Amino acid sequence: MRHARFRDPSGAVRNGEWHGDSVSFAGETYDLDEVELLAPSEPSKVLCVGRNYVAHAEEHDADVPDRPLLFLKGPNTVAGHGDTVTLPAGKERVEWEAELGVVIEKQAKNVDKEDAMEYVAGYTCVDDVSNRDDQRSESQWVRGKAFDGAAPIGPCVADPEHVPEDATVQTRVNGEVQQDATIDQMVFDVPTLIEEATQYMTLEPGDVIATGTPEGVGPFDDGDHVEIEVQGVGTLEHEVQR
Amino acid sequence: MRHARFRDPSGAVRNGEWHGDSVSFAGETYDLDEVELLAPSEPSKVLCVGRNYVAHAEEHDADVPDRPLLFLKGPNTVAGHGDTVTLPAGKERVEWEAELGVVIEKQAKNVDKEDAMEYVAGYTCVDDVSNRDDQRSESQWVRGKAFDGAAPIGPCVADPEHVPEDATVQTRVNGEVQQDATIDQMVFDVPTLIEEATQYMTLEPGDVIATGTPEGVGPFDDGDHVEIEVQGVGTLEHEVQR
Repeated sequence: MRHARFRDPSGAVRNGEWHGDSVSFAGETYDLDEVELLAPSEPSKVLCVGRNYVAHAEEHDADVPDRPLLFLKGPNTVAGHGDTVTLPAGKERVEWEAELGVVIEKQAKNVDKEDAMEYVAGYTCVDDVSNRDDQRSESQWVRGKAFDGAAPIGPCVADPEHVPEDATVQTRVNGEVQQDATIDQMVFDVPTLIEEATQYMTLEPGDVIATGTPEGVGPFDDGDHVEIEVQGVGTLEHEVQR
Repeated sequence: MRHARFRDPSGAVRNGEWHGDSVSFAGETYDLDEVELLAPSEPSKVLCVGRNYVAHAEEHDADVPDRPLLFLKGPNTVAGHGDTVTLPAGKERVEWEAELGVVIEKQAKNVDKEDAMEYVAGYTCVDDVSNRDDQRSESQWVRGKAFDGAAPIGPCVADPEHVPEDATVQTRVNGEVQQDATIDQMVFDVPTLIEEATQYMTLEPGDVIATGTPEGVGPFDDGDHVEIEVQGVGTLEHEVQR
């Protein structure tokens, strides 16, 4: 099953089923234009992973770290399917980063790799939107990574069985393929990331782990239409404006 | 006035008045041992500032940055007055960092320095607990700064007029003074920090800005009793255990 959060025609927020071109809740089915689709979870934090694909580390002339490179985005960064992300003002280079998102199901602390999948509600698509102007000049990536709207997430949360181990992750910008890889190329896999993170922090229901991006990142132009597809999940679409 | 959040004897969470040795709400006054004191706000994020006192940058052999060094702690880091912080397992050097905390009153985005104080609910004390073992070896300070309990906050939120411009910030560990400075030594003042942060992110009611620590940081031992005092706010006390 695939889940989506939406505001129904009466204004109530529902966590229903996602069918790609419609959503349903309690026996009612709605076309997408009848509802306001929301980000599929409400993370208290988005835990991101840097340089988790070898070819992406290489395109940034960076080493692959010997343990996961972790960084944080706050709830202010969350945007949903169909939203328009306003890029931070006055920045030259703000880039897409397509990623497999892991949505946490229940409170997780000190979880062993072997048990990690019990804590996963499902998978989603994330665009880890990155403001390189600042990211390259600051010690800690806050201006670069944690600005409002820097984490479009969606369109749904798919049960793990829908997503094959070698699922493709793809970015298309205005219809043109920019990133195209498979999630089995990740340096640290999902259970390893959960084990590592929960040694330090409690992950809460709805929290999202953005598992890193493959090669092929590049800069947005005003008005770009972005599609982030994870095989088995579906396609997150958003626009950007300056 | 000074505000505190607490669970009253019936279990209800109250945002009442702080009197130092008692709290009150709706005409009822409670001794501190009758209630469970909570962190005085529920931040969606704690925005921290590094190297904001020259002498502290120097004790770490680091330069003072030319704009605020920002980093993030998630809601999982929040602890309250009287809590015991469990230090991350197996780390040698986990240190105190006394800081003035700024609690946000209303949604703030693109706020000018001149208007910034309109968005401040008041001041509190923060211990920016720091795990140097990991902080020194990781690119982004997540294991080092964003582990569970890494942000004790409290005991109250004091209206800004209680806190003089040259208020002292002090750390005492087991009664011994370890940090002792005044907030007018900050490189970037509170309005400047709010202006800078809100160019990138929306600050929400209850969010906390931890404004950086003065010199005198040092490592905890198991069982230490920590007092973080900001003049005009009061004293945040917590314990640590390994």
